[in-house]
Amino acid sequence: MQQLSVITLGTDDLARSQAFYRDGFGWTPVFENEEIAFYQMNGFVLGTWLTSELARDSRRADLHRPGAFALAHNVGSEEEVDELIGRLVEAGGRLLRAADASPHGGYRGYVANPDDHAWEIAYNPAWSIDADGHVTFGI
Amino acid sequence: MQQLSVITLGTDDLARSQAFYRDGFGWTPVFENEEIAFYQMNGFVLGTWLTSELARDSRRADLHRPGAFALAHNVGSEEEVDELIGRLVEAGGRLLRAADASPHGGYRGYVANPDDHAWEIAYNPAWSIDADGHVTFGI
Repeated sequence: MQQLSVITLGTDDLARSQAFYRDGFGWTPVFENEEIAFYQMNGFVLGTWLTSELARDSRRADLHRPGAFALAHNVGSEEEVDELIGRLVEAGGRLLRAADASPHGGYRGYVANPDDHAWEIAYNPAWSIDADGHVTFGI
Repeated sequence: MQQLSVITLGTDDLARSQAFYRDGFGWTPVFENEEIAFYQMNGFVLGTWLTSELARDSRRADLHRPGAFALAHNVGSEEEVDELIGRLVEAGGRLLRAADASPHGGYRGYVANPDDHAWEIAYNPAWSIDADGHVTFGI
């Protein structure tokens, strides 16, 4: 099955990370302790884990930032893109790219979270999002 | 809503990346062109995009690997963990950690894909996966 269960992002400061998700996105962990927080997402779980623990668990000494990846959160309009980017920056994010039109339609900008992971905030009318937040690819 | 739409992984060789997902995981893109492939996943979309394009789009010149993150794919038994790790390595992955018992229950190992992104392959009986592949956090 084309499926994954967890996205784990390394963090160097769990409290700072949680402030970004709480005050920026408005999200609440389903579980948290002194080294990890899990957020229940749309069909999978997002984890934020101390980078040192992630490195130890995955047997890698050399985790770098920014990594060659990005996460995208889609919203319902261009106005919501601008509003959310503003909240994320107030919550400790750093603007990478102010939102503008995408060459393939829609509108998007990028914010780095406090651990320098890239979040794209996008309005993409071709991609449907159902009431449970599940996203289907579209053109 | 606690939700994301896309995980985008940078790749330096799209054909090599697609061989890993096709021959290792058994996945088929829902869309592909010369710079990107999209896979429809459990409630979101996985994209593999030329690293140079991801860097340009997100206005970053300096994307590094391995990044401080990991993705996890859960399966139904310890035997399936070992089998899938074997297939992923045959399909161009590199073993980071042979599977063993997790301190919090379950069983897991790690494989780096050809672009050095970490995939954890896990059996975690506490996390339910429904018929559509949607995962719910559990302890």
